[in-house]
Amino acid sequence: MNKSTMISMAVVRRLPKYYRYLSELLRRDIDRISSKELSEKIGFTASQIRQDLNNFGDFGQQGYGYNVKELHREISKILGLHREYTTVIVGAGNLGQAIANYTGFSKQGFHLKGIFDKNPKLVGIKINDIEIKDIDTLPEFIENNTIDIGILCVPKNSAQDVANIFIEKGVQGIWNFAPSDLEVPDGIVVENVHLSESLMTLSYIINEAKLLKENK
Amino acid sequence: MNKSTMISMAVVRRLPKYYRYLSELLRRDIDRISSKELSEKIGFTASQIRQDLNNFGDFGQQGYGYNVKELHREISKILGLHREYTTVIVGAGNLGQAIANYTGFSKQGFHLKGIFDKNPKLVGIKINDIEIKDIDTLPEFIENNTIDIGILCVPKNSAQDVANIFIEKGVQGIWNFAPSDLEVPDGIVVENVHLSESLMTLSYIINEAKLLKENK
Repeated sequence: MNKSTMISMAVVRRLPKYYRYLSELLRRDIDRISSKELSEKIGFTASQIRQDLNNFGDFGQQGYGYNVKELHREISKILGLHREYTTVIVGAGNLGQAIANYTGFSKQGFHLKGIFDKNPKLVGIKINDIEIKDIDTLPEFIENNTIDIGILCVPKNSAQDVANIFIEKGVQGIWNFAPSDLEVPDGIVVENVHLSESLMTLSYIINEAKLLKENK
Repeated sequence: MNKSTMISMAVVRRLPKYYRYLSELLRRDIDRISSKELSEKIGFTASQIRQDLNNFGDFGQQGYGYNVKELHREISKILGLHREYTTVIVGAGNLGQAIANYTGFSKQGFHLKGIFDKNPKLVGIKINDIEIKDIDTLPEFIENNTIDIGILCVPKNSAQDVANIFIEKGVQGIWNFAPSDLEVPDGIVVENVHLSESLMTLSYIINEAKLLKENK
């Protein structure tokens, strides 16, 4: 049994932030950092940080702090970033193209293998050296290329249909940018990026601030 | 004092999902829904839903359920969607263009007023009827057009600089797509969309599932 399987999703969602900061420290050749310094940079309390990182073993040392390289490697492993993942994007509109063009993902081990669209005007165009293919060829492509992650950048109305192809052909995770909730069987992971919902959270806070001012 | 100011952020982050479902019900001319039916659609427990919605007043009626129109209107108000917001996008790469082209935001009351980039090759091009302007003209533009929300689609290294312009010129909220944490004074709201971090959460879960299988 792997220790990390007991980590709560709240901690998991904080890990990429640790990972990002530690990567930055590594780039700047910084070997160690105290939980207090890390706290100032990252904005979590020192006690939160100690608690989070204790989940993975004994990294902090009284009076020394954290070994940046070791902690970075461990968090990277927990996040599964020591493995490589293959991906396809379905939907080659602006958003799909933005994701295809972002080279950072490939540096982190997420390798884009194919881009698909149903629009004949887009099929054949190359994005980041990958030719957009007709969506009809998607099922066969996933089968032949063992794709780990399907990236959904299609409109709401086609999202479930494409997700069903992903599921049927054995994709393990779906990164869903369509503004809809997918129905998937157990064992398939969906990570939603619902931009409208994020924007509404922003408008909520702005509106609240306005109301507070008006009622003062 | 407005009642909604006491609502926790956890509830706020669930509200857009209620809003989305209720919009869907309205489109389908459904007048009322029980918390049980809503629960089946939305994936929260019926008791969670009752608890969430009780924050806003007395909408549910024993044996009747929720009045869809009334609840939709109230949640829309809580989310600040009865107001209009003006926005600018800085960074007209694929992601900035994807956001500029998404007409859904404008339907929800978020009106894009300007797009800015420092790349002379992009300046002058029209996206969704809005001409991309030189970033040097950003400060004056915000001043003259009272912009509520600045949308940051620039690379990490320029993110804080552009954010500083937003802050100085009186933008109230920043929707940040750059993979960096902005430093902002009190009273400025930042909503981050950190795509890499979302992808890492996905890889974590996929990796965990793989580990579980391997250790079985």
